[in-house]
Amino acid sequence: MARRRTMPPLRIGMLGLGTVGGGTLTVLKRNADAIARRAGRSIEVVAASARDVRKPRDLDLAGIRLQADPFAIVDDSQVDIVVELIGGIEPARTLILRALERGKHVVTANKALIALHGNEIFARAQELGLIVAFEAAVAGGIPVIKTLREALAGNTVQWLAGIINGTCNYMLTAMSERSAQFADVLREAQALGYAEADPSFDIDGIDAAHKLTILASIAFGVPLQFERVYVEGIRAVTLEDVRYAEALGYRIKHLAFAVHGARGIELRVHPTLVPTRVMLANVNGVMNGVMIRGDAVGPVLLSGAGAGAEPTASSVVADLVDVVRALTADPNNRVPHLAFRPDALSDAAILSMDEIESAYYLRMRAVDQPGVLADITRILADSRISIEAIRQPEPAAGDATVPIIILTHRVGEAAMNAALARIAALPDIAADITRIRMETFT
Amino acid sequence: MARRRTMPPLRIGMLGLGTVGGGTLTVLKRNADAIARRAGRSIEVVAASARDVRKPRDLDLAGIRLQADPFAIVDDSQVDIVVELIGGIEPARTLILRALERGKHVVTANKALIALHGNEIFARAQELGLIVAFEAAVAGGIPVIKTLREALAGNTVQWLAGIINGTCNYMLTAMSERSAQFADVLREAQALGYAEADPSFDIDGIDAAHKLTILASIAFGVPLQFERVYVEGIRAVTLEDVRYAEALGYRIKHLAFAVHGARGIELRVHPTLVPTRVMLANVNGVMNGVMIRGDAVGPVLLSGAGAGAEPTASSVVADLVDVVRALTADPNNRVPHLAFRPDALSDAAILSMDEIESAYYLRMRAVDQPGVLADITRILADSRISIEAIRQPEPAAGDATVPIIILTHRVGEAAMNAALARIAALPDIAADITRIRMETFT
Repeated sequence: MARRRTMPPLRIGMLGLGTVGGGTLTVLKRNADAIARRAGRSIEVVAASARDVRKPRDLDLAGIRLQADPFAIVDDSQVDIVVELIGGIEPARTLILRALERGKHVVTANKALIALHGNEIFARAQELGLIVAFEAAVAGGIPVIKTLREALAGNTVQWLAGIINGTCNYMLTAMSERSAQFADVLREAQALGYAEADPSFDIDGIDAAHKLTILASIAFGVPLQFERVYVEGIRAVTLEDVRYAEALGYRIKHLAFAVHGARGIELRVHPTLVPTRVMLANVNGVMNGVMIRGDAVGPVLLSGAGAGAEPTASSVVADLVDVVRALTADPNNRVPHLAFRPDALSDAAILSMDEIESAYYLRMRAVDQPGVLADITRILADSRISIEAIRQPEPAAGDATVPIIILTHRVGEAAMNAALARIAALPDIAADITRIRMETFT
Repeated sequence: MARRRTMPPLRIGMLGLGTVGGGTLTVLKRNADAIARRAGRSIEVVAASARDVRKPRDLDLAGIRLQADPFAIVDDSQVDIVVELIGGIEPARTLILRALERGKHVVTANKALIALHGNEIFARAQELGLIVAFEAAVAGGIPVIKTLREALAGNTVQWLAGIINGTCNYMLTAMSERSAQFADVLREAQALGYAEADPSFDIDGIDAAHKLTILASIAFGVPLQFERVYVEGIRAVTLEDVRYAEALGYRIKHLAFAVHGARGIELRVHPTLVPTRVMLANVNGVMNGVMIRGDAVGPVLLSGAGAGAEPTASSVVADLVDVVRALTADPNNRVPHLAFRPDALSDAAILSMDEIESAYYLRMRAVDQPGVLADITRILADSRISIEAIRQPEPAAGDATVPIIILTHRVGEAAMNAALARIAALPDIAADITRIRMETFT
């Protein structure tokens, strides 16, 4: 069935032979025939770098020059395209810039680097007429960058909301499905390799914020602005909150939001109550899901594996095939790195968190419930915060305080902060009030 | 914010000013600035054809030459790209071929034409180095063609399953959510414009089969083979079946399947029981959803609006932007029409329905239930069909027969046909046995 083209193979130099590097090698070999039938030429890894070249690997490395020095690969004249899978900022940043100086296109899965240094990297690539492709940097195998950048090119994107960190989603799903406590689920996720020994990057929301930075730029045509993202992780979410939310018809998901309203752009990452009937609430376990609303297409949902060796490799290889197809096109006619052409980016403002609106789930504990409830509702009414529901579940036996759960309608964050400060100051209310934002997607 | 490029506008000639044509005009005007910022040049409709040019239209037609004769548009030297939105086979086929002869790229939303005559059209386009783009032909605004053709280029696609006819999904959802009977829901769908006066094309599965033909070719790299698709519509699905399925934990969906197994390819469109917890079972109303399983990426789900003026226009405009970007590329380096290069298509066999395997939901009525159940289970055992569940709901008061519901494990279609013939011949069983296939996606 295979009819190889006469075009010479595209020669890849791969930086890093970890999980994604190994997955990419495996996929390129296993599907070599199907890839060549699609791309019109074969794609071959000719050189790869790894910190320890002698480490035994369960990979077919035949025909691949292994080297400890990644710079030797970037400088190798036998390499047409550099695939950067080292991760982190340095030396990845320097390696990519040097690959560009050497006239090589780059494919990377490095979300942190793109979020923090993408503006610099894309500007240099643009000057040199080169491509830096990064589909694998966001949501693993889900083609969310291609969808935003190409498939929705006719739309004004109004908002997007994504479950884009598999560790957080795995943990919240496990808490919900197995009534497990946060600390137990975290230990389990670490044992399974879904969370790092230092899990902060994932569970404090930084990884999701990197990915959101990238998606928002592509959706709205603004420069990458990681420093403007509001970031809240899942450490404060308790099993108690998961249960109360469920009783009210919601699941708690760690969501990343990019919303373009009339006043500017909201970029925020935080735990969120989502109605159970919404499809995004049913993206469970390590799966990722991104919902995008375009003015023409309406809401579109993409879901699938957001991490892992082969799902991420799927996006790396798709980028390689895209590069093959774009090689002969006038560089000015290629898909722009951030979807919009660099001289047509917008300077729309990223709003501060005080300026955004949200509905809220509030949980607090009161010593003397009846009197205090009147105080709370009075404070909320004073702040013009309207209440959707109040629940006062039975306290556990022997518990001196009673829980109070309140769902509010949409209200400005600043007004909510002010009201919460007043409520926390009430003598009969414990000071640590839990608040989780809520979105209904209606 | 708009910085228009010096590139001249791309001039569109549009054939047909119906729902999708009108939507495309609206989207191109409303988002003209964002589109030009992405594509690097503006996209302008300069001419359009409509059967009745005098008909009052709620569209801004300023700057557009209206003509009754679509051939005049195809022949117009001022037109760079032809957008065919007339639908049907002729004159659409002749118009597209003539546009190609005139050296014009084509964008079309015509699923029937592509499914039945795509092989001829793509061959001619390939010879002439031209693009025929057709994202809007399948699943409206959902970028399923781009995803299969580009984003999953590194994968061997194992199967796909789609809810790709909005009329069927609207009707089945309404039956389920409102306990409505098939005939009532059909009248309602017709009144709402979701079903045609002659609804056969949709509810008998032909429209879904056209779309499946296209998706399967792109997924597996085989020529378009509409005539090999097994097609079953939703006319035989009763409210009773919907209710029994729900009681067993399933929803009935009209699904299109393309499965590449070791023996060949299955192409089939039929009502299907899907476990309620599966995301595809929660794609409701007029929404479409397509699940694709690639060997590297695993399962990916895309869902969104599968029809309608602006969702379909979203895909038409995305195709136009893709054409703009591909204009300067070597024609041999562009994305192939059917994902695989024309000289690298596979001759994998499409299996006959007798050769496929499925689990089944069976519903029959028996006069004398206890004795007959032993007969039925004996016949199924003889045919090596194993049973997952049997239910015998209470018959309605005054009903002389009792219903029997059986869920089977996976079995060959031929064996099931033989067993059903024997069961139908039992003296105490009514001859019209309902059978609906079942897929668990596990």
